[in-house]
Amino acid sequence: MVIVMKENATDCQIAQVKEKLEKWGLGIHLSQGVERTVIGAIGKKKEGMLETIEIMEGVAKVVPIIQPFKLASREFRKETSTVMVGDVEFGGEKLVIIAGPCAVENEEQMIATATAVKKAGATMLRGGAFKPRTSPYSFQGLEVEGLKILRRVSDSVGIPFVTEVVNPLDVEKVAEYSDMMQIGARNMQNFTLLREIGRSKKPVILKRGLAATVEEWLMAAEYILSEGNYNVVLCERGIRTYETATRNTLDLSAVPLVQHLSHLPIIVDPSHATGKRHLVMPLSRAGIAVGCDGLLIEVHPDPENALSDGPQSLNFGQFEEFITEIKPIVTAMGRRLE
Amino acid sequence: MVIVMKENATDCQIAQVKEKLEKWGLGIHLSQGVERTVIGAIGKKKEGMLETIEIMEGVAKVVPIIQPFKLASREFRKETSTVMVGDVEFGGEKLVIIAGPCAVENEEQMIATATAVKKAGATMLRGGAFKPRTSPYSFQGLEVEGLKILRRVSDSVGIPFVTEVVNPLDVEKVAEYSDMMQIGARNMQNFTLLREIGRSKKPVILKRGLAATVEEWLMAAEYILSEGNYNVVLCERGIRTYETATRNTLDLSAVPLVQHLSHLPIIVDPSHATGKRHLVMPLSRAGIAVGCDGLLIEVHPDPENALSDGPQSLNFGQFEEFITEIKPIVTAMGRRLE
Amino acid sequence: MVIVMKENATDCQIAQVKEKLEKWGLGIHLSQGVERTVIGAIGKKKEGMLETIEIMEGVAKVVPIIQPFKLASREFRKETSTVMVGDVEFGGEKLVIIAGPCAVENEEQMIATATAVKKAGATMLRGGAFKPRTSPYSFQGLEVEGLKILRRVSDSVGIPFVTEVVNPLDVEKVAEYSDMMQIGARNMQNFTLLREIGRSKKPVILKRGLAATVEEWLMAAEYILSEGNYNVVLCERGIRTYETATRNTLDLSAVPLVQHLSHLPIIVDPSHATGKRHLVMPLSRAGIAVGCDGLLIEVHPDPENALSDGPQSLNFGQFEEFITEIKPIVTAMGRRLE
Amino acid sequence: MVIVMKENATDCQIAQVKEKLEKWGLGIHLSQGVERTVIGAIGKKKEGMLETIEIMEGVAKVVPIIQPFKLASREFRKETSTVMVGDVEFGGEKLVIIAGPCAVENEEQMIATATAVKKAGATMLRGGAFKPRTSPYSFQGLEVEGLKILRRVSDSVGIPFVTEVVNPLDVEKVAEYSDMMQIGARNMQNFTLLREIGRSKKPVILKRGLAATVEEWLMAAEYILSEGNYNVVLCERGIRTYETATRNTLDLSAVPLVQHLSHLPIIVDPSHATGKRHLVMPLSRAGIAVGCDGLLIEVHPDPENALSDGPQSLNFGQFEEFITEIKPIVTAMGRRLE
Repeated sequence: MVIVMKENATDCQIAQVKEKLEKWGLGIHLSQGVERTVIGAIGKKKEGMLETIEIMEGVAKVVPIIQPFKLASREFRKETSTVMVGDVEFGGEKLVIIAGPCAVENEEQMIATATAVKKAGATMLRGGAFKPRTSPYSFQGLEVEGLKILRRVSDSVGIPFVTEVVNPLDVEKVAEYSDMMQIGARNMQNFTLLREIGRSKKPVILKRGLAATVEEWLMAAEYILSEGNYNVVLCERGIRTYETATRNTLDLSAVPLVQHLSHLPIIVDPSHATGKRHLVMPLSRAGIAVGCDGLLIEVHPDPENALSDGPQSLNFGQFEEFITEIKPIVTAMGRRLE
Repeated sequence: MVIVMKENATDCQIAQVKEKLEKWGLGIHLSQGVERTVIGAIGKKKEGMLETIEIMEGVAKVVPIIQPFKLASREFRKETSTVMVGDVEFGGEKLVIIAGPCAVENEEQMIATATAVKKAGATMLRGGAFKPRTSPYSFQGLEVEGLKILRRVSDSVGIPFVTEVVNPLDVEKVAEYSDMMQIGARNMQNFTLLREIGRSKKPVILKRGLAATVEEWLMAAEYILSEGNYNVVLCERGIRTYETATRNTLDLSAVPLVQHLSHLPIIVDPSHATGKRHLVMPLSRAGIAVGCDGLLIEVHPDPENALSDGPQSLNFGQFEEFITEIKPIVTAMGRRLE
Repeated sequence: MVIVMKENATDCQIAQVKEKLEKWGLGIHLSQGVERTVIGAIGKKKEGMLETIEIMEGVAKVVPIIQPFKLASREFRKETSTVMVGDVEFGGEKLVIIAGPCAVENEEQMIATATAVKKAGATMLRGGAFKPRTSPYSFQGLEVEGLKILRRVSDSVGIPFVTEVVNPLDVEKVAEYSDMMQIGARNMQNFTLLREIGRSKKPVILKRGLAATVEEWLMAAEYILSEGNYNVVLCERGIRTYETATRNTLDLSAVPLVQHLSHLPIIVDPSHATGKRHLVMPLSRAGIAVGCDGLLIEVHPDPENALSDGPQSLNFGQFEEFITEIKPIVTAMGRRLE
Repeated sequence: MVIVMKENATDCQIAQVKEKLEKWGLGIHLSQGVERTVIGAIGKKKEGMLETIEIMEGVAKVVPIIQPFKLASREFRKETSTVMVGDVEFGGEKLVIIAGPCAVENEEQMIATATAVKKAGATMLRGGAFKPRTSPYSFQGLEVEGLKILRRVSDSVGIPFVTEVVNPLDVEKVAEYSDMMQIGARNMQNFTLLREIGRSKKPVILKRGLAATVEEWLMAAEYILSEGNYNVVLCERGIRTYETATRNTLDLSAVPLVQHLSHLPIIVDPSHATGKRHLVMPLSRAGIAVGCDGLLIEVHPDPENALSDGPQSLNFGQFEEFITEIKPIVTAMGRRLE
């Protein structure tokens, strides 16, 4: 921690800061500048120290030196982690393609979708049983019935699935039925949910919050890791900005940035980010080229009659074409599809 | 719902949209413009209709006509609602002043604070027992022990208290101990929590999410109202913008805007919004002058040694001075303090 | 400047940084932490030094210590500056009320407006002769003819006026006709224009850019001051955020923040910020209560037929009522109206 | 234009809106919904009509139907435009690679850079002679001397160059010396400059403003086109968001979105967007994969000693490697490098 004193800080104020640091057992390095004094505090920091110093008389600002996340950091683990879900590997050479509808509507829909996306080349199925919806009057999902449908379909078609969990109370049940859980953007800082999932050891996709910084996102992952669950895959899905032409702004810089700061695998969701079907393909290509480990793509047998998020869903034909079109970029990046 | 067709939409595409609307039993008004056709759909809309139309061939955009919140809307209830917590009235003539520390640390701290803020003129005590923290390594609150301290202090000093609830599982317990519950910014779209609180009937402060629009905020209130709990007080606490000189940007326009759209009372939290003690006073004055029904102010016996959020907390002397300084504005607005 | 080295920085990398700093004649304080080394550089910094260090091997980050603006800073001048425009004083006890239409349309409109707003209590007239418009097909203003109208009206009614200048080439002419110039939000970083106005010595209102930080805004003021024009008044007029319910988000925290960092007077424009007439009054009250030195209010004889920005303009009756309604807040703040 | 009346709008208010529309010679389509009346206005709209209606009694909102830009729109011109600068074609099969330093420092630097980047595969040189700088105390560029250096270097090495113009007064001179002009992000709504450049017919790169929507950006292009200059190339260079881990947030969705709405070619600047050298390569790949027509890359002989923007510049060796590394993506997209 580096403490920058105000230009007109008195000797007495400087002495008080030093005294406080000494009381905490920290080492001190004093740096008398032409205009200001800067104090370096050396040693193990504890809860609230930074804030305490920040409001002392004569202090202009306090600069933390060390990143607040540890287990999620690249410094903690040099090689990129891989997360296995059955045979599917996140962070390996193969790009993971997760496809399926926003919401599970019924078994026929899911059978048709699972069969079609598997045939086209998807490695994992997605579908929401519990839906977090802005309006209390919108369709909230089939809940446990949806989980059962997903399990049956997944087993019969032979493709693992991921599904969202929104309630800490449901974690056990969702973990029991599913192959992988997902934490949605709105729940990125639902710390109760994060801890519960941390305790379950089930692989999990952690979506970035709508207005979360990369640092806050990695701190949310840290919650899960710190409970002992290391099977965390991050997912960039667009952030909220002033631009309204797309639903959100897909922040592809976050992918190499996260890879620089953390060892966790990272995938991209262009469907939710843009909310527009015609943007899904170009932004998927961009996501692969920027170096992500997988894609989350909305596919629906009949987008025009979907119960939610139709406008961004691809139908089966479009998804098949999609796989064909991304292939050259996947190859150019030295990776493979299933 | 108004459907704007593309400039080059064919007669066939227009016919398909009409057919779909008729299938749903909606009335149709066709408006043939110079460059485009616009279709008005009349009647009761259902789940997903807008999205379904949006992706039909030839459709440029669909414009919803009616606000998505009902019970929270000013159209539903013309007069401003009041919410009672014991003798304290939100939305009445008297301005509600809620004061206390970010986190409950121990009984002495709370006794001292409750006594001091009551004496200075506060009408309600605040203090966090369950703390949602960005880092898993930060102090997470005293939990149930904190609730018990708050209850004892509140009873002995004679001032009701509000405290945050972060876990749907804790709602019953927090409702049992507290006079009023608070939903923090990070949980504004934790729909499980909203529903649970909706079922409890306990008065609740609903803070605006960090990146929530006013409409989404009112939709979150709608979740609580739709479960039968009408005792909802909104709280503006700053939104996330590009500006980093303040912790968040306090959006005071939201106060009259909410009052225009909704009948719910609304208060302002300048302490969390700015994160800087020297901005608390001017923005409190501004909040009162913009027409809010109350203020949420952080007060701590010894901010320099607070376990969290020290830099924005007032000490007892500063809080007393604060009450003196806001009084003229309160009076100028035709309102009163306790 | 404080240089934080990476955790795994080598001795050689640390030595290279030290060498570079010594080559520049800077003093060095080395602080060997438990996990990292921090280097303080003492002495006069020059152009590009920070950036040069930032990309050296082994450097994690560089923290500048001193604010980049000088003449605009509170450290440069302890007392708040006042800016005089004829008898009108910005930064004094009296609140400055500037009123008038967005655009000058014709002489009758301006005579009527000037007379009405002066009678109601405004101290200065506003009106745009040169209009920066998003669309090339929108009304661009009466230009020099508009300036002449403003001058004649101002002289005959006896009220000074402020008008926007958008083109560096027009500065001389606008300075000749007007009492005060205005730099609009879109031109806050039009450095050519800033320099030109800096050379003219005419009093100027500098609006905050749509996406400008407080620091960038003060740097823009620094451009004008550094050319020798100290007659700068800042104007907060809303920033661009994700919220679309108001045109912009009025950042009232910026007022006390600017007053903390700078000695320049600051006013508030609630009309442009909100774009909604019914929000002008509550946000004006808030602006006064937060401590601003004046208000910029749009007034039009017939807002329903205004050539631009009708929806946020008050008519004469509404403006009269406006002055009556803000008076108690002005008094409560210990200030006066004309 | 579609006018949505309030739920409680009276027949008289509806009649007044109709009357106003009829006075303007517009056709009317009335749509009586279950809860609200919606009025469609048909015919040629003029200046200010929308705003006038918006503030009439009983009106809830007005929805414009037609995009405000015309000459820049895909509806105006179906095929993608190409812009030629000598032999260099923007919008053709070959990807345009523009490389060079942020600022022209001296002739040796430019000769070395031009030679190196041409050899590596760049098709155009860049370098700033006039620099818009946040601080008045920063290096402002070599100005006309810089233009002369660029011209001599460009001719001797045989590579065309683009350079920024910041002052409307300099347009003629910059047009005389350069092959292509650039309008920087801060000047995207400097309408005087846009018009001046519109009159010059010189090819121009129009960078997106820091907080500009895609619509405002295309409106800025419309200013240039409407003066008769069709040689406009757009450049996405990052927008300002709450995220501070990168300098700006590169909005790659804007590329396919612009291509959907407009016929103008579009390039990407990953150097300014991210401000970090290690992000330039992955985001360049992403830009190519999303479908852009070219890249703007900062290259400097000695980034550690650059006068500005060193941290994001590549040195010659890194640029050569850069070209090698993007090649597979270029090929995968069916395009070519020089």
